[in-house]
Amino acid sequence: MPDSDFRELFDAVAAVGRSRSGWTRPPWSAPLREAEEVVVAAAARSGLVSSHDAAGNLWLTDPAAEAGLVAAGSHLDTVPDGGAFDGALGVVSALVAVARLRAADVAGSERLAVVSFADEEGWRFGTPIFGSRVLTGIYGPEVLDRVDADGVRLGDAAPPDPFAARGGYRRLSAFIEVHVEQGRALAPAGVALGVATSLAARSRFAFVCEGAANHAGTTPMTERRDALVVAAHLVLAADAAARAEPGAVATVGRLEVEPGGSNVIPGRVTGTLDVRAPDPTLRNAVVAAIEAACPGVTLTDLATDPGVAFDPQICAALHEAAPDAIDLASYAGHDAGVLAAAGVPAGMLFVRSPDGVSHDPGEHADEADCLAGVAALERALHACLAAFPPNAG
Amino acid sequence: MPDSDFRELFDAVAAVGRSRSGWTRPPWSAPLREAEEVVVAAAARSGLVSSHDAAGNLWLTDPAAEAGLVAAGSHLDTVPDGGAFDGALGVVSALVAVARLRAADVAGSERLAVVSFADEEGWRFGTPIFGSRVLTGIYGPEVLDRVDADGVRLGDAAPPDPFAARGGYRRLSAFIEVHVEQGRALAPAGVALGVATSLAARSRFAFVCEGAANHAGTTPMTERRDALVVAAHLVLAADAAARAEPGAVATVGRLEVEPGGSNVIPGRVTGTLDVRAPDPTLRNAVVAAIEAACPGVTLTDLATDPGVAFDPQICAALHEAAPDAIDLASYAGHDAGVLAAAGVPAGMLFVRSPDGVSHDPGEHADEADCLAGVAALERALHACLAAFPPNAG
Repeated sequence: MPDSDFRELFDAVAAVGRSRSGWTRPPWSAPLREAEEVVVAAAARSGLVSSHDAAGNLWLTDPAAEAGLVAAGSHLDTVPDGGAFDGALGVVSALVAVARLRAADVAGSERLAVVSFADEEGWRFGTPIFGSRVLTGIYGPEVLDRVDADGVRLGDAAPPDPFAARGGYRRLSAFIEVHVEQGRALAPAGVALGVATSLAARSRFAFVCEGAANHAGTTPMTERRDALVVAAHLVLAADAAARAEPGAVATVGRLEVEPGGSNVIPGRVTGTLDVRAPDPTLRNAVVAAIEAACPGVTLTDLATDPGVAFDPQICAALHEAAPDAIDLASYAGHDAGVLAAAGVPAGMLFVRSPDGVSHDPGEHADEADCLAGVAALERALHACLAAFPPNAG
Repeated sequence: MPDSDFRELFDAVAAVGRSRSGWTRPPWSAPLREAEEVVVAAAARSGLVSSHDAAGNLWLTDPAAEAGLVAAGSHLDTVPDGGAFDGALGVVSALVAVARLRAADVAGSERLAVVSFADEEGWRFGTPIFGSRVLTGIYGPEVLDRVDADGVRLGDAAPPDPFAARGGYRRLSAFIEVHVEQGRALAPAGVALGVATSLAARSRFAFVCEGAANHAGTTPMTERRDALVVAAHLVLAADAAARAEPGAVATVGRLEVEPGGSNVIPGRVTGTLDVRAPDPTLRNAVVAAIEAACPGVTLTDLATDPGVAFDPQICAALHEAAPDAIDLASYAGHDAGVLAAAGVPAGMLFVRSPDGVSHDPGEHADEADCLAGVAALERALHACLAAFPPNAG
């Protein structure tokens, strides 16, 4: 399969849901179905058949293959006014790599498959990574009553009984997801590809800084308890603590000052702190450093996610397939991470994003880098056919 | 006049407009008129006659005196649910001190007067320090169309032509205002009284910190432009700059973070910065230090007030009358400051507030400190009769 096939398929998908303000293919929508039809038609030319499982995930498989699949893929839905690469690059790369291996008739190539997961972005119903979370049993019927901005129920937009697909992840012996880089670690390193070693451990906290509201004119500095000064120390402590640990990030994204008058000393500040790091130990170290720097502030856990390490064998296969690739952690949720947490040997390959722009029409990867990703994926999938025999799961 | 007269008069005024939630005597209201009547009746017992000028200021003077007045006073209106001391302490202290000097028949005592200024708090119509600002020509007819929360026009609540009183400040040869301390400088110094050397210079700024909104997970620390980190530096720089200059205060009272999502790096932060210092030079030094520490942030002037220095002769008379008193600057507006800016020799004497509470029912000064204030005012007014002869103005 020539490189031009990648370009043609990528452009055909990118022609769907495009407007002047970006790409919009909502889950359970006509533009999403149209993008899937483009991919299904291309897959058919390589002899793959298509089927949707009960959760709406699209499987492209050899007619003879039911399980023991060595698969690649991602998703075709987008955020509103998103970019052309997030999700689509992974599906298109998977299909091109699988088609090449099938055309080369490598041993076991009938086990190769492509999966395009349903509702990965999750913005419409608040159900991120929907398809793989249904397969692995994380989402249950409680999500069916969620409604979108127009009041449409998820249960009415999605297939009637998505949870019939539960357990379907066991069809997979291995899974690799190619994704456009989010963030910007590869460009400064001068490499086209990165191997994700993990999905980051994450914690989100609420905090309250207490002070005493008082007159901004008549209260001397020595008599003040300014809650915003406490919060400013927290903001800078979070920034410094994250910078001190490789790969960690910390963000105070929300901050509210009370009472908020220009001539009143802030008496109370509330906010959120988001901390992520390549593993839970490092994440905990960052949180501990922030707490140590701000003894008067209590962090209240809102959400915590230990993250997940990707399969070492798949990471090794990806490095062998892409010798220049560097290791990195991924700081967002992905279907590959959900599968890895469920025990599927999984990995991710990131393609350089020169500007680090994500979920935005400016999202971009150079074609040469995309093609390098396809070539690496092809080699890694080939290696996985031997490394992950069908009856190993 | 015995000390008990101070207590009786203060308590009689404090009985007016009192509720379980504090003291409320709005401008141009029945409770205010009732408090004035209490004071007028007490003044009559010392042979003083009362008159309201066109702006609603209450003058208590000897029947023979028209100008060349050596006066003391303050105001009888309060903020809603305010305290018993703000304003009232100054009027009651003035009347008791003047009554004592008249009873002692000191030379020139017919020039002694008490003024209770109209609508000093200004909360009802947004017209702070109304009475003295009308006398000195700062407020003109443009304020008459301001309405209160019930839609009542100032022009309908106040006397029909307040501006006929313009120029009335020229009746004063000297003016002293006693006031309960706002803030808490005297208690730590262990003294009952303070002499205000100036009304603070003040500037209020708006600021904008620009950054780049981005994903809180996927954007490495080294690639961030977090507007809240910039703002946190500003908050701490303001705090440090004010602490470095004696008597200065700086406050970021309002801060708004955009877009404000817990998983989004702040792209823009807006806020206000309030800086006050005993004089404009010191205030400018604090602002310059903040600007130097935050090169990326522009401060936009919203309001600036150079403040005013009180009359050195009156300050000296107050110190002679109260040898233990320390100097301090006042960080709020006062009628004495308006008069000083108009050229009237004026000064202020602050009475210790143990808790520094202001505009609150908890506002307090010990009776012994109040009596020390009355005694000092009496001596200072006596000295002013000689220091400011009637034809000097």
